[in-house]
Amino acid sequence: MRCVGDIRLAGPVVDASPGVEVLEASSPHPLVSRCAHQRRTVVHVPGVRSVAVGGTELVVFAGPCSVESREQIVETALGVARSGAVALRGGAFKPRTSPYAFQGLGEEGLEYLAEARRISGLPIVTEVMDPRLVGRLAESADVLQIGARNMQNYPLLDEVGRVQRPVLLKRGISATIEELLLAAERVVARGNDGVILCERGIRTYETATRNTLDVSAIAVLKDRSHLPVLIDPSHAAGRRELVPALALAGVAAGADGLIVEVHARPCQALTDGAQALSLPEFSAMMERLRPVGRAVGRSLAAPTRVLGGVA
Amino acid sequence: MRCVGDIRLAGPVVDASPGVEVLEASSPHPLVSRCAHQRRTVVHVPGVRSVAVGGTELVVFAGPCSVESREQIVETALGVARSGAVALRGGAFKPRTSPYAFQGLGEEGLEYLAEARRISGLPIVTEVMDPRLVGRLAESADVLQIGARNMQNYPLLDEVGRVQRPVLLKRGISATIEELLLAAERVVARGNDGVILCERGIRTYETATRNTLDVSAIAVLKDRSHLPVLIDPSHAAGRRELVPALALAGVAAGADGLIVEVHARPCQALTDGAQALSLPEFSAMMERLRPVGRAVGRSLAAPTRVLGGVA
Amino acid sequence: MRCVGDIRLAGPVVDASPGVEVLEASSPHPLVSRCAHQRRTVVHVPGVRSVAVGGTELVVFAGPCSVESREQIVETALGVARSGAVALRGGAFKPRTSPYAFQGLGEEGLEYLAEARRISGLPIVTEVMDPRLVGRLAESADVLQIGARNMQNYPLLDEVGRVQRPVLLKRGISATIEELLLAAERVVARGNDGVILCERGIRTYETATRNTLDVSAIAVLKDRSHLPVLIDPSHAAGRRELVPALALAGVAAGADGLIVEVHARPCQALTDGAQALSLPEFSAMMERLRPVGRAVGRSLAAPTRVLGGVA
Amino acid sequence: MRCVGDIRLAGPVVDASPGVEVLEASSPHPLVSRCAHQRRTVVHVPGVRSVAVGGTELVVFAGPCSVESREQIVETALGVARSGAVALRGGAFKPRTSPYAFQGLGEEGLEYLAEARRISGLPIVTEVMDPRLVGRLAESADVLQIGARNMQNYPLLDEVGRVQRPVLLKRGISATIEELLLAAERVVARGNDGVILCERGIRTYETATRNTLDVSAIAVLKDRSHLPVLIDPSHAAGRRELVPALALAGVAAGADGLIVEVHARPCQALTDGAQALSLPEFSAMMERLRPVGRAVGRSLAAPTRVLGGVA
Repeated sequence: MRCVGDIRLAGPVVDASPGVEVLEASSPHPLVSRCAHQRRTVVHVPGVRSVAVGGTELVVFAGPCSVESREQIVETALGVARSGAVALRGGAFKPRTSPYAFQGLGEEGLEYLAEARRISGLPIVTEVMDPRLVGRLAESADVLQIGARNMQNYPLLDEVGRVQRPVLLKRGISATIEELLLAAERVVARGNDGVILCERGIRTYETATRNTLDVSAIAVLKDRSHLPVLIDPSHAAGRRELVPALALAGVAAGADGLIVEVHARPCQALTDGAQALSLPEFSAMMERLRPVGRAVGRSLAAPTRVLGGVA
Repeated sequence: MRCVGDIRLAGPVVDASPGVEVLEASSPHPLVSRCAHQRRTVVHVPGVRSVAVGGTELVVFAGPCSVESREQIVETALGVARSGAVALRGGAFKPRTSPYAFQGLGEEGLEYLAEARRISGLPIVTEVMDPRLVGRLAESADVLQIGARNMQNYPLLDEVGRVQRPVLLKRGISATIEELLLAAERVVARGNDGVILCERGIRTYETATRNTLDVSAIAVLKDRSHLPVLIDPSHAAGRRELVPALALAGVAAGADGLIVEVHARPCQALTDGAQALSLPEFSAMMERLRPVGRAVGRSLAAPTRVLGGVA
Repeated sequence: MRCVGDIRLAGPVVDASPGVEVLEASSPHPLVSRCAHQRRTVVHVPGVRSVAVGGTELVVFAGPCSVESREQIVETALGVARSGAVALRGGAFKPRTSPYAFQGLGEEGLEYLAEARRISGLPIVTEVMDPRLVGRLAESADVLQIGARNMQNYPLLDEVGRVQRPVLLKRGISATIEELLLAAERVVARGNDGVILCERGIRTYETATRNTLDVSAIAVLKDRSHLPVLIDPSHAAGRRELVPALALAGVAAGADGLIVEVHARPCQALTDGAQALSLPEFSAMMERLRPVGRAVGRSLAAPTRVLGGVA
Repeated sequence: MRCVGDIRLAGPVVDASPGVEVLEASSPHPLVSRCAHQRRTVVHVPGVRSVAVGGTELVVFAGPCSVESREQIVETALGVARSGAVALRGGAFKPRTSPYAFQGLGEEGLEYLAEARRISGLPIVTEVMDPRLVGRLAESADVLQIGARNMQNYPLLDEVGRVQRPVLLKRGISATIEELLLAAERVVARGNDGVILCERGIRTYETATRNTLDVSAIAVLKDRSHLPVLIDPSHAAGRRELVPALALAGVAAGADGLIVEVHARPCQALTDGAQALSLPEFSAMMERLRPVGRAVGRSLAAPTRVLGGVA
């Protein structure tokens, strides 16, 4: 932690725009700095079973890259719940590098997610890219995800800062740790203090993996900020066989949990199939995660008993 | 150029979303690939004196990072016009890493830009970050700039693809050349074929410069695409004393022109003052640029005789 | 693993220099590829108590960056042995970026290392930079370290390939995983198959840490090669407070152990003091490492009872 | 330039090894810093026609990656001389990533180089990798090249620092500009002040080129140091069609010349054929270079009239 003496949070320093109160402080991101807070933030995600991100329990958000059909998302939801996932991830609006690639099911995807939530009891984590859709998605989703490409999309950060939904903020593909904290600061400064940070791999020269998981970032973020930190081993690795090793490494380094891609039928996935775990692979990874969590003083949610087969 | 034989453009290959016509082609970005076109695109910017980006004339867009006051923008506009700039750049809505930094004058900035256009005769280049503001900015600006942070902001790309204004698309700070072309493809696919590409430096480990100008990208982009290519030596260098060398290098490598930061009083600049040229420095750079342009077969606009002093 | 079918190692493919036998194989580095071997290599380091690198036991090599004095190295050796280190690291010939910085004690340093070995019973790991010194260092050292700057120093690799001493081969600061394996192949091809790979952080744009520990590399190396893999959390982090988190992450990801900088008096260290753990910090880290090792099926050497006080 | 006031060079600051005189100065590399010198260094390469690197004339070193045969090197030497090259590059001892790849002709290659010098009149630039061979190569070569992989090979730098032959020092593939200057400082501190710096592309995430030419480095090096600076567009680009654009960019940015790969028959090259220019391509590039050089106040050597056909 880089705060010195008994500096108390007062507010930001820098050239403020009209209407922003300027006070004295030493950090460029006072609201998210650890100096400013006596305790770490725990972000609560509402649901059948309340999820506390940043507490002693490790949380695992799991699910497919994209919502593809009712069956796919419900089957995956039930499957991941059985292995201990506490929330379901799945994209309805997808950011795709190619304008010709599948862009997600949109509204239809949101309906399927709602149904999966009803059936599995898992809260929903889904990405928002468009500031005009923040209100709509805040109705459907339990956690709003800001993807790596949008970490510095300021109108979008401003909008999610104005709703009362937890925000999962992914580090940009070449964002520094300080830039991630400044993006989080913006969300909190707008009024939403439920920010969960997420390290998801950075872009380097190495091509053996899709990105390079910056496992040190977990320790640095925990040192500089009071916000909870997850890792996304799936986007970091880009290949499913590497995902468990990265997940274990992240938890050992102090992450508060994971967001991981799981697909009931990875080979049929419309997007990012190569990095999605199958349900048995996910279950096996969770079993390996449990003792590592315990070794660093963290428990893992017990597998949820789900109403199940009804889906 | 990587197209072989007499392949004719038909359309994209990949998994298309409903409603997108799928045809056969070999490129992931057929609309912007050189294969698809018999001649290079020249983007015309309307104004007192029409500007052709991508023709034999080198174009220089110049102006401050941010619009700060009526006086500042008008003085800078007249100054850069006198040295041969053909368009005025200036930000009214600024993307700033810190939520506490000056975010631009907004609407007021647009009014000052309009006035600077009236007085100097220069068309206006300004950044748009928010898809909700594309329509508004398309009324005020002659060229819509998409900044590096927003190169993969798809809702924004979709919106600028739907208006009839030239788009200056900056490469993301760690975007590959292929990702830049895919972003351009998205804008063209939505209906706007007036895209100008811009190399502005990429993020590397080297800290002697703000970013690393990827001068090779100019040659690669010219090889792969028919779109015009500018460079932004100011953001690449981050320090004004390096700007002229990068500008010369870019033109020698085949760029169609520059977008460069100039401020009538750099030391008083609210944003990015360290990389802004003063008016005399800009004028000196233009004089050095002229013979280099000539050496590679490009002319530079003659200094505009401006109504001038009236401002 | 990328070998298919029952391909048996035959030899390398590529354009061979005269005198190199060319046979058929699918890997560019057949001797170190996992395909070529039925079991993983365990490298044995001789000593009072034999050390097996790559077995079920995690190994920890610890000691100062540089040998600075007889007292310093003996005190550190005894201290790290007490906490479970199985070998002593320490540089006598130091690669320093500045020609004016302390370059190591040279021969005198080797004598102090020999004495520390006598007293502590720990085998010695020390760096060799000069091909002319390989023979001399192979007499004094139990493991020859090739530093990151020399991973592609081919005359040096050739020389260490010709002696019968285990080689700790560090990944170059921007070497790809494939390049690391090709460097290892060279050592093995020259006749020395006792190669231990080491991930020590790569150079990226992030400045919060000295380098970025590429934790994925552990899993990739284990997948592609039969050689043991250590990590160096000290050079990766560059700051002692981050070292334990990286050490835990590395072990969780599957590393066979660590090489870590420890100094009896870090604040007085002549080189790299900021990243050296004190003896109590090292001891605390080892206690945290033990349960994580256990969680992934690895034991940690029991603290050595040392003759001790005699030093 | 970062020196302030009238600080005069005295010597280095930092923790010195015994025998190094410690004096006062502000730069970590006082001997190569511009502050220390009133004029820029011009490195003279002896030969039939003396070559001055760092003067007003642009110098072009050209030739194949490797010496492959007597005919190949003589033909290439005569060809490049005819187009204005002032020195012949060619490797006899090659650093190759794979231990199974062609490692150069060694002594035989040196003989062919000597013959090519005799016939063409061009001085010879060749790489040295092994400190034990510096003396031998200093007899045969007119310029000793230190390759990118060896920029921090300190025993090698020390040795080339002790001979009286110009040294072409290439920037490491991920070396910072400061590290390059510190490597140059080491050579000069050992007694050899004929150092020519060379930017040859750095490793980044971009894969469209083999490396990323850091064209800004030219301007930064010229600002910080009095040493001459060349660029190597061939290794930067990795593809011959991009070489001319990079060469032009480098000269426009202020480089003192080029080292470029040329092969009489690129398609038959044993190493790096993809990036070698043919003789006609080289000749065409030189013609394009001439006016760009003139535009920045530099002349290019007139094509040498060679005895020619006799070879």
